[in-house]
Amino acid sequence: MTVAAPIAHLGRRYHFAASHRLHCDAYDDARNREVYGKCNHPHGHGHNYTVEVMVSGPVDAVTGMVCDLTVLDAFATEKILTKFDHMNLNTLPEFVNQVPTTENLCIEIYRVFKEGFHAARLDRVRVEETGKNSFEYAE
Amino acid sequence: MTVAAPIAHLGRRYHFAASHRLHCDAYDDARNREVYGKCNHPHGHGHNYTVEVMVSGPVDAVTGMVCDLTVLDAFATEKILTKFDHMNLNTLPEFVNQVPTTENLCIEIYRVFKEGFHAARLDRVRVEETGKNSFEYAE
Amino acid sequence: MTVAAPIAHLGRRYHFAASHRLHCDAYDDARNREVYGKCNHPHGHGHNYTVEVMVSGPVDAVTGMVCDLTVLDAFATEKILTKFDHMNLNTLPEFVNQVPTTENLCIEIYRVFKEGFHAARLDRVRVEETGKNSFEYAE
Amino acid sequence: MTVAAPIAHLGRRYHFAASHRLHCDAYDDARNREVYGKCNHPHGHGHNYTVEVMVSGPVDAVTGMVCDLTVLDAFATEKILTKFDHMNLNTLPEFVNQVPTTENLCIEIYRVFKEGFHAARLDRVRVEETGKNSFEYAE
Amino acid sequence: MTVAAPIAHLGRRYHFAASHRLHCDAYDDARNREVYGKCNHPHGHGHNYTVEVMVSGPVDAVTGMVCDLTVLDAFATEKILTKFDHMNLNTLPEFVNQVPTTENLCIEIYRVFKEGFHAARLDRVRVEETGKNSFEYAE
Amino acid sequence: MTVAAPIAHLGRRYHFAASHRLHCDAYDDARNREVYGKCNHPHGHGHNYTVEVMVSGPVDAVTGMVCDLTVLDAFATEKILTKFDHMNLNTLPEFVNQVPTTENLCIEIYRVFKEGFHAARLDRVRVEETGKNSFEYAE
Repeated sequence: MTVAAPIAHLGRRYHFAASHRLHCDAYDDARNREVYGKCNHPHGHGHNYTVEVMVSGPVDAVTGMVCDLTVLDAFATEKILTKFDHMNLNTLPEFVNQVPTTENLCIEIYRVFKEGFHAARLDRVRVEETGKNSFEYAE
Repeated sequence: MTVAAPIAHLGRRYHFAASHRLHCDAYDDARNREVYGKCNHPHGHGHNYTVEVMVSGPVDAVTGMVCDLTVLDAFATEKILTKFDHMNLNTLPEFVNQVPTTENLCIEIYRVFKEGFHAARLDRVRVEETGKNSFEYAE
Repeated sequence: MTVAAPIAHLGRRYHFAASHRLHCDAYDDARNREVYGKCNHPHGHGHNYTVEVMVSGPVDAVTGMVCDLTVLDAFATEKILTKFDHMNLNTLPEFVNQVPTTENLCIEIYRVFKEGFHAARLDRVRVEETGKNSFEYAE
Repeated sequence: MTVAAPIAHLGRRYHFAASHRLHCDAYDDARNREVYGKCNHPHGHGHNYTVEVMVSGPVDAVTGMVCDLTVLDAFATEKILTKFDHMNLNTLPEFVNQVPTTENLCIEIYRVFKEGFHAARLDRVRVEETGKNSFEYAE
Repeated sequence: MTVAAPIAHLGRRYHFAASHRLHCDAYDDARNREVYGKCNHPHGHGHNYTVEVMVSGPVDAVTGMVCDLTVLDAFATEKILTKFDHMNLNTLPEFVNQVPTTENLCIEIYRVFKEGFHAARLDRVRVEETGKNSFEYAE
Repeated sequence: MTVAAPIAHLGRRYHFAASHRLHCDAYDDARNREVYGKCNHPHGHGHNYTVEVMVSGPVDAVTGMVCDLTVLDAFATEKILTKFDHMNLNTLPEFVNQVPTTENLCIEIYRVFKEGFHAARLDRVRVEETGKNSFEYAE
């Protein structure tokens, strides 16, 4: 008889700096200012974003690990940091058809992991925009 | 055919400073000291409290937002910060009939949001009393 | 008619410093380096670990508390801090038969609370290894 | 005989979010990329900036204060936050003739305080660009 | 020939929670509200204070230490934490004749160390009242 | 007539994890335990160390920078992180003849920068051993 391996959760944090402007083409200027406030300033602004990816899985009985951090870091670097770090989010293909709010950014990052990262189960993605604001997404 | 909007969670943090004394009228002095320790010191003490409100809802397809932060901040300022910031919790109506522990403070704040804030679903309220202690409440 | 007491959650944080080396006897040196990277360096390294224990229970109608923090702290000090603080994890009986990864450390701490702490319900244990890495376990 | 009032130092922290692009018109593109790296990306990026202003003065024997925080906050809000928060630094008059590095931003903020804030002695200004980078300026 | 031991600086942080009310008996109520704002609320409020003591001295060639942390911690616990933790500052003898602003609290703590701690040179004392406010004193 | 460039200070933070044991061969076991307490436990323990290097220099009128961060990071990585990260400090040549206290570690790191880094003036090196302890050294 075997005992199922315990399931543990691993949270890993990444940092990037980017700029964005919240502006919706379907709205006129007055409505944009009303909805987005100072986040609608015409030349944009920026943030230091922190992304926390939470994954889980059985703790391997031999290695004692949920997943190989090297694999997770390589994926995050190639697919997330290279794409978003020191970029203007509004200029990226992901945000041609949607406003680069941190809600949408969080969902985009979740989808990238969901589609391409299979070394552990994806629990959720959390993005901190400032020390006051954070967003989480999970399916 | 329409696709349901994804549900995202937004956490927003607020800060206030207040004092309290943990003391239960139903107990004698010795029992109060035993239960509350130094939190029972007669003249009270205080904390920098951090409140994190977590709300959720469908991400609006046009604005890309779960809810309008201006509305959330205005509610929190009027109903929470104005009431608790730089106050002695023991002197407030909320704590006439219950001890102002951070458990009870957290539940009070949850109830204020539950009753009056309807711009998004209320997930939970978290109150950090110090860097070592935090409390969460959800129904 | 009585109303059930609300259930609140309490998170309490503890800190300790320890060293470990990630090395699996079932693997040869090359495989160990591949799996654990620099965490396999022969003389070990160390971390400042932060443990957050989350417990929950009905908020006592008289005391306004989920559980007595003095009891929780005494348990954590005797069973966790005394055992792990300023220690080399590899030399402890808990890690004779398993690698002292933070996944396994987190599960060990959970089991110690599960077995011996009964003053409130154990929700989960979280261990932060660095500012970038955290692990959580719950049954 | 009077005793001189003790001199204390007060540090006050403010936060704003802004975007910038590091690019020097006197250099060609290759040289700009070499000097500024990814900070030279054409569409800019951004940060959550933290400004700490350190001022000092005799502690008033009656009020027990170095200076009136209301006055300091009003000055910082009007002269610093209103100017820089949610802005693209490159578009501001301060950075028409100089690159909006955080070194230059720090010196600009120092000069604004030096010129207009006289309620206490200005010790230094510190700007944190990320959790890894900080800059300080004092004359 | 001997080489002078290098001088290093050691900063040690302590935490306590206390309440205070800023109120000056020499002022009438209107003037008190004007000077202290919400810090003058009649029943007081409170903070989690962080004290950082910075001391320095030659690094002992044998032990490699500036001073024995056990001695420093014992002094801070007996003379600072026991006195201020979970107290109402206004009720303490130190603040009978002066307002318990954090400036005055910082100077008091400095004087306690200056008078009684001789195991290393006292450089300065820093008190953080909130994440936004800090005070420093040195002679 | 030329105006001297303003001098700004740049602080850059690096992180590494290492283990150490505080033990002085010149002392017997009882004296070692007395001097170093639990830091003398025979198998060692470890920390997440944070190093902050503070350098300064004239802000270049063209680039707006004190020094090239790429150069600073490359130096720190090669000379500090590669040497100390995920290592047991007691096994390194630097600590054959001195105890690996954080005072001595801080002085070592200062000397490495002093000797080899010439792109800006070295102000000081600060090493944080835990959230409670920090050490600084400057000549």
